[in-house]
Amino acid sequence: MDEKNVNLLMFSGDYDKALAALIIANGARELNASVTVFFAFWGLLLVRDPEQLSDEEKTAFEKMFSTMTPKGAEALPLSKMNMAGLGKHMLLDMMDDKKTPHLTDFLDGARKKGVKFYVCQLSMEIMGFKKEELLPEVKIVDVKEYLEDAMNADMQLFI
Amino acid sequence: MDEKNVNLLMFSGDYDKALAALIIANGARELNASVTVFFAFWGLLLVRDPEQLSDEEKTAFEKMFSTMTPKGAEALPLSKMNMAGLGKHMLLDMMDDKKTPHLTDFLDGARKKGVKFYVCQLSMEIMGFKKEELLPEVKIVDVKEYLEDAMNADMQLFI
Amino acid sequence: MDEKNVNLLMFSGDYDKALAALIIANGARELNASVTVFFAFWGLLLVRDPEQLSDEEKTAFEKMFSTMTPKGAEALPLSKMNMAGLGKHMLLDMMDDKKTPHLTDFLDGARKKGVKFYVCQLSMEIMGFKKEELLPEVKIVDVKEYLEDAMNADMQLFI
Repeated sequence: MDEKNVNLLMFSGDYDKALAALIIANGARELNASVTVFFAFWGLLLVRDPEQLSDEEKTAFEKMFSTMTPKGAEALPLSKMNMAGLGKHMLLDMMDDKKTPHLTDFLDGARKKGVKFYVCQLSMEIMGFKKEELLPEVKIVDVKEYLEDAMNADMQLFI
Repeated sequence: MDEKNVNLLMFSGDYDKALAALIIANGARELNASVTVFFAFWGLLLVRDPEQLSDEEKTAFEKMFSTMTPKGAEALPLSKMNMAGLGKHMLLDMMDDKKTPHLTDFLDGARKKGVKFYVCQLSMEIMGFKKEELLPEVKIVDVKEYLEDAMNADMQLFI
Repeated sequence: MDEKNVNLLMFSGDYDKALAALIIANGARELNASVTVFFAFWGLLLVRDPEQLSDEEKTAFEKMFSTMTPKGAEALPLSKMNMAGLGKHMLLDMMDDKKTPHLTDFLDGARKKGVKFYVCQLSMEIMGFKKEELLPEVKIVDVKEYLEDAMNADMQLFI
């Protein structure tokens, strides 16, 4: 097979959708495809580095927003049946029963396999996140840089 | 027109999104496109056979999960304005007023028209669904088999 | 770069997802791509003309539906953290802090830049919306017309 290009726009901040995106990203790399994941809006919550959260130089709104949102990948809620975390606890137990890796494992896998991590500049500005609060390998891009990658890819998904 | 290939990833378990996916799948077959729908996560709820639900050989969690989730396509909730079923009842009445077929009709249409039904192996394992509980024509595949279809399609959607 | 074709299916009626779709549509036009946005289901709420809402010749259900749904683009809720509007108010304040345009600005931008606005005929019929209630430039199409555009595009997203 020729080398394919896969482009995923990670918009959602849901645990289950992020799991789907990263399983696809890992699988595509194993098939030798080049993979870009563009994290925008709630998807930014997935690339926050839980060790590097900071409230320095933030406005009151930015601090409130930072406090109210999940801290890193494993803290994301489910898109359905979350029931204040009970549904997610149940899903994680069911995943453990089947020895399925968790979201952070797939995230680490994607980082090791060379998936390109793009982050939406506008979303960062609006949410008040600083570069230092994110995983070190992310590249900050605007919508045009995203589009140039996506329009030339063999496959694009909005997740 | 050349024969096109359409690949849909049905992630959501919402009635309205499933309706959109199956209307697209039916329409694409009528345009002579080859169509694959890959059912993953909550999308699995769409291909459960309501006559074949079983709790045999399931763990406690799997049984609870099976009990708490909708039984077959017509039981799925709306993604918005569901209001404990009132909104969906209203939508179905409005569809009936316009003689619009229901979700099961579009599902049956897709089955008759030769839409390929792929089911995500990992989702089945996590949720504890058995092959016998699903519609008979589904093919159980892993993420790589999904990707090989999707990366070579002319159009991919994550729904 | 060759002229590319971008096709977006706007299914969701969420403020944040509509913002993402229209930022992409505007950006793609600035890169000289041809852009079609197909508004279906809740996406219809985005192309209602707030000055032209009418209850004439509507059934009781259609009137109730029309009353219960958001009136125009700026009235759409967030997909997450909406908290009865508080979260959205907060997001809009954060956008204002960074001088980010609002949804209606991106909608107007897309209209001026020649983004093609397709509207799903079946969704209109089910929801009971009349052509006169929508923005004047929308073209009403069926699923096949959508698919002919989408299957021949370089990039498709379901938003």
